[in-house]
Order: sequence, then structure tokens, then C-alpha cells
Amino acid sequence: MGSTSATAPPWKHLLLNSLSSNSHLKHAIYLQLATVGPNGRPSNRTVVFRGFADNSDKIQINTDSRTRKMEELRHCPFAEICWYFTDSWEQYRINGRVDVIDASNPNPDKLRQRERAWFESSLRSRMQYLGPSPGLPSLNDQSSQEPTLDPSAGPVDAFCLLVLDPEQVDILNLKSNRRLAFASLCSSINGEKTWTSTEINP
Amino acid sequence: MGSTSATAPPWKHLLLNSLSSNSHLKHAIYLQLATVGPNGRPSNRTVVFRGFADNSDKIQINTDSRTRKMEELRHCPFAEICWYFTDSWEQYRINGRVDVIDASNPNPDKLRQRERAWFESSLRSRMQYLGPSPGLPSLNDQSSQEPTLDPSAGPVDAFCLLVLDPEQVDILNLKSNRRLAFASLCSSINGEKTWTSTEINP
Repeated sequence: MGSTSATAPPWKHLLLNSLSSNSHLKHAIYLQLATVGPNGRPSNRTVVFRGFADNSDKIQINTDSRTRKMEELRHCPFAEICWYFTDSWEQYRINGRVDVIDASNPNPDKLRQRERAWFESSLRSRMQYLGPSPGLPSLNDQSSQEPTLDPSAGPVDAFCLLVLDPEQVDILNLKSNRRLAFASLCSSINGEKTWTSTEINP
Repeated sequence: MGSTSATAPPWKHLLLNSLSSNSHLKHAIYLQLATVGPNGRPSNRTVVFRGFADNSDKIQINTDSRTRKMEELRHCPFAEICWYFTDSWEQYRINGRVDVIDASNPNPDKLRQRERAWFESSLRSRMQYLGPSPGLPSLNDQSSQEPTLDPSAGPVDAFCLLVLDPEQVDILNLKSNRRLAFASLCSSINGEKTWTSTEINP
């Protein structure tokens, strides 16, 4: 019924396969990220998968530090991803704690990670962080101002990297009608993550 | 900057248009529903849009009463839908309170509404509610049992109708890069909903 693995997370291999088999679709890297607001109500929005943090199972997402999710993650650092692959009919639900790495982060390694994420984004993506504050009423005269950006310039203040550290992963395949639940255990000896996997009813 | 409307919600018209322009895609009626668990953490899963409750702006979703979202909605009755249309590049974020209508509901009108939702589902969909408890470890010997279902039989105990009553709707169009925020106001005179709309920064 269940099994345990101490090597690379077994679900990561499945996720990379799903990404590859859906890669002809632009939206295959779009996923929905749920958080909880200070009022205790859920929020949900589409974000872009920006890869795994180097050689780990941690999921990177870029965001604008002026969006509401920043306040929400400060209030409750847990999130759940729902990621549906429209061609292979697979759903991934991934929950865990989110590390918010913005310009004010005191850790130099994390600031370098944020800088790498900035340069790995397209110029077009970077330009968005120079626009007016997301979610505020738009003023018509703003549309005429086209910001310019030096391609070699580092991350602007509004650029923020989110790193989700998965604790539980639930994979549902609607073609085979099979569902797998993965849960992480943290070793008390070396702090290394171990994953259990269980086949559950869809 | 803002406008107010007392007639049919302006966002419903936009949503019906998006549904129609994406209707060639099987997954156009799939959306992500975020809730909050008793532990205060968010949950997120794909569900199927089952239409609007008769002539209203309330969104219907079928679910299995044995799933975790039931307990979550009892704990916190608010949810946020994130619905991304992959062909028209439009995102709808819809939040509001969810009315949970299961077999034990004391209201005869709501039980009739649940019954209608049952018969509007395909036989294949209805069959799922006869299967083993979703999320529990699967036992291999269950796969050999094929349940049978009388097409004229009413809803089984596990069948539950969720009805989300929208309070705020946020529509982002990634092609035009425009974003509209709708908020409902409840009239103190007749209890009727009025909607305001504001163009906000994407």
C-alpha cells in the first residue's frame, strides 16, 4: 500500500514527465496558487512555474511585491498549488511553506537566487515590474508612458521570488483514474527529506 | 473610473462569452477552487463548472460529501475560484460564500436543486459517487467491483451540491492586458445585489 524513498522525490520525476508531454502547450507552465488572506479567506490566482531551485524539489514562482499575495504569505506562509495538465489530464496538488525572497531579504545567497531568477526571465516579463501597482485603479494617462529597461540591470525593487518547499503532493490521473499521495518526512538525524507514497482512491 | 449596475451582473455576460469562445476545449469548464482547512492552510483542487443556479449569478459545483473540502467549508464557508481560459487568455477570480447542499439539508427547495443537479450530470459522473471513499488508501480488490446505477434513481448520499454566491470578481485579459474588478453591494432596502466595476492595473 505504501512505500518510502530517500532519494530524489518520486513525484518530481512524474511532474517533469507531465511538463514534457504537455510542453507543446503555452499554458502547461501555468498553475493556480492558493493562499490565505489576513481575513482568513482563501485567494487563488494563476502564476507561472519558473523551474525548481537548483537540484532541489522546491518550486520557484516570480511575483510583484506590490500584489496582495505578499501580505497574505506574511500572514500565513503556506500555499497549495493546483496544476492541471490539459493534454495528459493530470492534476498535481502541491502544498508547503513559501519562502518570500524580496529586495529586503538579509540572506546574500537568497538575494543571488532572486537575481538569477530575474535574469532567467524574459525582458518582456521583467518590464511588468516597472508598470503601475497591480490591483490599483488604472489612470488613463499611464498607458502612454512606455518604461525602458537596461537588459543588464539587476532586479528592480518590485521583483520578488517565491520558493515553495513541498510537504505533500497529490497526483490524480484522469485517464487511468489513479491517484497517488506523497508525503514528506524530515529525518531527525540529517534533516533530509524522505517521501512516502500511497495509492489512494480517486 | 468606476460604475454601478443594478441589473444582471456585468461580469456574468463576460464569463458566458469566455465559456462560449473556449467551448471547443473540454477543459474550458474546469476551474480551480480554493478553500481553507481547519489548520488554517489553503487547499486547491480542480472542479467542474455545472452552470449557474436558475437565473442567478450563483455558481454550481458538484462534489463528493466524503472529500476533505466538506470539512473545510464547514470550518470556513468562503472560497475563491480561479478559472483560466487557455484559448482566450482570460483569468476569472471569483470569491464568495459557499452553500453546501448535501443529503441532510433541511430545506426542501435546496434538496430539489440538488436533485436537479444530480439528473443534469451524466450517468458516468453519477457513478463516481458509488465508488470507494475519495482520498482513502485504495484496496486492490475494489477495482473488480463494478457498481450499477438505475438512471432514474435520485441522488445517492455521497452526492453534494456546492453553490458559490459571488461577492467579488476579478477579470484579467492577457491579450489586451486589461483587468476589471467587480464588487457586490447588498441593498439595505430589498436585499438585491448591485455591482460596481473598476478598471485596475494588470
